Amino acid sequence: MAIENKAPGKDVSSEDLESKFPLAAKKSADHFSTFEIAGAQFGGGHIPVFAGPNMVESEELIVETATAVKASGAQFLRGGAFKPLSFPYRSAKYNETREDGIRWLGTAKKETGIGIITEIMEERYLDLVCEVADILQIGSRNMQNYPLITAAAKTGKPLMIKRHFGCSLRDWLGAAEYAMVEGNEKIILCERGVTAPHTHKDSSRFLLDLQVVPAAKEVTHLPIAVDPSHATFWRSWVKPMALASVASGADAIMLEVHPDPENSAVDPLQPITFEAFEDLMVSMEGIAQVVDRTMGRTLS
Amino acid sequence: MAIENKAPGKDVSSEDLESKFPLAAKKSADHFSTFEIAGAQFGGGHIPVFAGPNMVESEELIVETATAVKASGAQFLRGGAFKPLSFPYRSAKYNETREDGIRWLGTAKKETGIGIITEIMEERYLDLVCEVADILQIGSRNMQNYPLITAAAKTGKPLMIKRHFGCSLRDWLGAAEYAMVEGNEKIILCERGVTAPHTHKDSSRFLLDLQVVPAAKEVTHLPIAVDPSHATFWRSWVKPMALASVASGADAIMLEVHPDPENSAVDPLQPITFEAFEDLMVSMEGIAQVVDRTMGRTLS
Amino acid sequence: MAIENKAPGKDVSSEDLESKFPLAAKKSADHFSTFEIAGAQFGGGHIPVFAGPNMVESEELIVETATAVKASGAQFLRGGAFKPLSFPYRSAKYNETREDGIRWLGTAKKETGIGIITEIMEERYLDLVCEVADILQIGSRNMQNYPLITAAAKTGKPLMIKRHFGCSLRDWLGAAEYAMVEGNEKIILCERGVTAPHTHKDSSRFLLDLQVVPAAKEVTHLPIAVDPSHATFWRSWVKPMALASVASGADAIMLEVHPDPENSAVDPLQPITFEAFEDLMVSMEGIAQVVDRTMGRTLS
Amino acid sequence: MAIENKAPGKDVSSEDLESKFPLAAKKSADHFSTFEIAGAQFGGGHIPVFAGPNMVESEELIVETATAVKASGAQFLRGGAFKPLSFPYRSAKYNETREDGIRWLGTAKKETGIGIITEIMEERYLDLVCEVADILQIGSRNMQNYPLITAAAKTGKPLMIKRHFGCSLRDWLGAAEYAMVEGNEKIILCERGVTAPHTHKDSSRFLLDLQVVPAAKEVTHLPIAVDPSHATFWRSWVKPMALASVASGADAIMLEVHPDPENSAVDPLQPITFEAFEDLMVSMEGIAQVVDRTMGRTLS
Repeated sequence: MAIENKAPGKDVSSEDLESKFPLAAKKSADHFSTFEIAGAQFGGGHIPVFAGPNMVESEELIVETATAVKASGAQFLRGGAFKPLSFPYRSAKYNETREDGIRWLGTAKKETGIGIITEIMEERYLDLVCEVADILQIGSRNMQNYPLITAAAKTGKPLMIKRHFGCSLRDWLGAAEYAMVEGNEKIILCERGVTAPHTHKDSSRFLLDLQVVPAAKEVTHLPIAVDPSHATFWRSWVKPMALASVASGADAIMLEVHPDPENSAVDPLQPITFEAFEDLMVSMEGIAQVVDRTMGRTLS
Repeated sequence: MAIENKAPGKDVSSEDLESKFPLAAKKSADHFSTFEIAGAQFGGGHIPVFAGPNMVESEELIVETATAVKASGAQFLRGGAFKPLSFPYRSAKYNETREDGIRWLGTAKKETGIGIITEIMEERYLDLVCEVADILQIGSRNMQNYPLITAAAKTGKPLMIKRHFGCSLRDWLGAAEYAMVEGNEKIILCERGVTAPHTHKDSSRFLLDLQVVPAAKEVTHLPIAVDPSHATFWRSWVKPMALASVASGADAIMLEVHPDPENSAVDPLQPITFEAFEDLMVSMEGIAQVVDRTMGRTLS
Repeated sequence: MAIENKAPGKDVSSEDLESKFPLAAKKSADHFSTFEIAGAQFGGGHIPVFAGPNMVESEELIVETATAVKASGAQFLRGGAFKPLSFPYRSAKYNETREDGIRWLGTAKKETGIGIITEIMEERYLDLVCEVADILQIGSRNMQNYPLITAAAKTGKPLMIKRHFGCSLRDWLGAAEYAMVEGNEKIILCERGVTAPHTHKDSSRFLLDLQVVPAAKEVTHLPIAVDPSHATFWRSWVKPMALASVASGADAIMLEVHPDPENSAVDPLQPITFEAFEDLMVSMEGIAQVVDRTMGRTLS
Repeated sequence: MAIENKAPGKDVSSEDLESKFPLAAKKSADHFSTFEIAGAQFGGGHIPVFAGPNMVESEELIVETATAVKASGAQFLRGGAFKPLSFPYRSAKYNETREDGIRWLGTAKKETGIGIITEIMEERYLDLVCEVADILQIGSRNMQNYPLITAAAKTGKPLMIKRHFGCSLRDWLGAAEYAMVEGNEKIILCERGVTAPHTHKDSSRFLLDLQVVPAAKEVTHLPIAVDPSHATFWRSWVKPMALASVASGADAIMLEVHPDPENSAVDPLQPITFEAFEDLMVSMEGIAQVVDRTMGRTLS
């Protein structure tokens, strides 16, 4: 008896590379895009770092953080002024700072010269965010919001597309293709943890999928970033998973860093301190050297 | 040694019912919303049926289908004029009919009197779609596109929110709460298959989660629909899973029905014929009686 | 660029049917094994029921349960005298009754005439268990313990192989083939819930995979049983999922029934009472009729 | 409304540490077992390496491999003489060498002085295997075969328990406790990939769960090994994932190494050559230094 078996679609196939994401697909085994954003090189021998708080809580906090993470070697400040939340109610503390937050990111940029990456959730805020951001972040929940990706890509700004926690490598490359088909070539993909049958501790919903790094680099020329903070959730797991991310071949690292993690407006068990970030940068630089790459201050 | 263990969040907790989705949460064990849409009762003893093609391919096809499925007992015609696709390229056959498609749904409604449910993907098409649709469908990929849900809810039209294939019951109820907080009380939830470690056949990406039906009905008063066509993918699995859906307590059933399934513009292995739909309606009516409910023509 | 892509193995393929499990594979579309065990027909128009407690706690309890479930239409008494546990420590209450338990099952069989199904965990107890059991159960945790399956199959007794909660349909059919290759043709497969990224409530570890019923019946001629009690864990979810199991095409149903569920030695939130079982049998008989099959007392 | 919510059990809880696996649980934050096997230190600053073919194919192959991997810094030769297979049929090539294989491992040990780790599948072969093996391996499929674990633990030989691909950290620690309760303290745990909703390429069934390394080390004092070869399946993914394993804090590494990978009796896309292993050892040694540990030849 034969099984009727057409229309595959769970994993990436050779046919997909040609018809589903020809722009995102590698043309040869050693094809890897390289491009520069705000003075940092992506996709080559260097591994840029995005660091900062989950939320842009206040001007003071964001300028202080920009100064600290830049001194430790981060090229980009991360922080959300617009933040999706799975439920419509927000506490006074956990609240979007929106236009204010974007303005504060601008201050941090002007005062420190650091690059800015921040999330965009609605087309109508694109102009505002583009004034300040060097990279527009498409969050996990919007990975399949194709109209938003299309609009963001059309601005010409570099885009970082976070993988949805329930989506495959194939789905993720489809989202990248939506951006590339608009002529935007500065697309970064970012792994941030997937849902899995077994996590390990009550509050950890996600599993960091580092196997997707070599898997993605086998089929796409786009740089693959990893965000171990969101995936692991627990502060003490961030360092080992960040080091593992660099060792696995990640092309950029995103980390949650906060001057006072326990009083962070969001997920206070997750961010690391400035001191822990400095220590982690030193270790990540060591790992980068082993895999023949540079990172943080080893760049210069 | 004690484990630091705050901030739960994988499953629905009592605290969630009070603070995360108080509007969607049941107030007592026998609290179930009931409401009427286009003459059909939702959330009570009756199980409405949505049937039709994946895509609104042509006016002729959609009117023919509306006539056939209505005759077999369906109260609503389903069909997409706007359809998300994981990749930006579409074949000539698989293409959205957009404004034309919405117009053809209007024709089918006028000629047959059937109710209309169709997907909305962008805020700017809301007015157009609202002219024809009795229920706005938020697709799986947009379950976490909260600005879209908010805008759709504000129209006052009933909403059906499909569960994202990678999202939990908790996430799904959060999406419903975003709609309810706008004052919209006619919200239907629809299970359509989740990703799982083990599917069974190469092209079946999803696993129909029928356990979510009693689980959801334990915590929310909103009606829970099930769409076995998308989940199972294979035509021959649709009947057993549709019957199982009714037996599990589903409050509405969505099915893909096409006059010529093998020439369907999308997923030709999935839709069932008019004859198979008629046969399935008879069996579903039988199951509904066993669980003290009515369905299709047993309504009258 | 082409992807190196040999040696598939996640889902069942046509090649698997010929080389991996030729004995378990269907030879034609309507090929379904039928056989009789203890007077009950498996694999045909009839759906036998296994009911009883998780553990054979005492002689009195097991005889009482056998009497009650038989009166409601169950053909087999289920109950474990040997029970695997994920941890080596057992409470006084939750303890195996082993040789005593097997003897008590024998008493229940003699006094009521009901068939017996019970789990076998070690080869050295095979002779003892075979004196009483009509069906040997291979538990989920032992699905890949091939030496045990081989030894159990060699006894000639019918075998029921429960699917491991982390194993695919393909792995499961491999386990069945290990039994069939020993010449044993009375093999029943039993779905009992799989691990999935999203369950719904803190204590529910599993998701009942009813989609595997039509999927399995497409490729194997062996009867497919379903155990909704273990999968759902919560008593109030057992009825809807049991009805859904029958509707999905299950060939046998296993249920946990206990005279005093809240004082059950194991998983007290899971078993149903005698009254709930009687009520469930009536509903399952109704569903069975809709799918042209018989069940419980509708047999006669 | 409150949710009835007792009997936790998906993730490790503080209560589990006390009642489910008190022997495997850490007594304090810096509690980590250390022990020596065949001259190699486990659980401390050193990271031993197990390398060799999947199957002990022939005496010549196994002695050649032992010589090569030892020269590159591996302390243990791995290779299966007894190998479980998901289906009962084996090709002439893929066949267990059983007693012969064990004897050949003995020759390799005598000629090179390398330690031996090999899988045990049945109690009746324990004496035979113990004559040669320094570590008994409990394979993934037997992780819940508690009688086998008990019997193996009673021999007093060190045990390595591979995590079942569908089991949680909690289940895995339960298996370790079954060994420790017999008085055996030299227990190593080994992560080798889990099933997940999204793998990346058709033949890769598993996802390497590196997040389990910090998660496990937070609750257990036992050393955590990682086997990236089985998990990744594809040869070119082994190096990045092996480096990531060391960076994540793994206490030992297991790798498939074969003199002629493409002609390997099992999974020919998976093993790496002697040259690739030598290169990988150099890189792993570099990573180990960054995390203040030693590995391979950096030991001396």
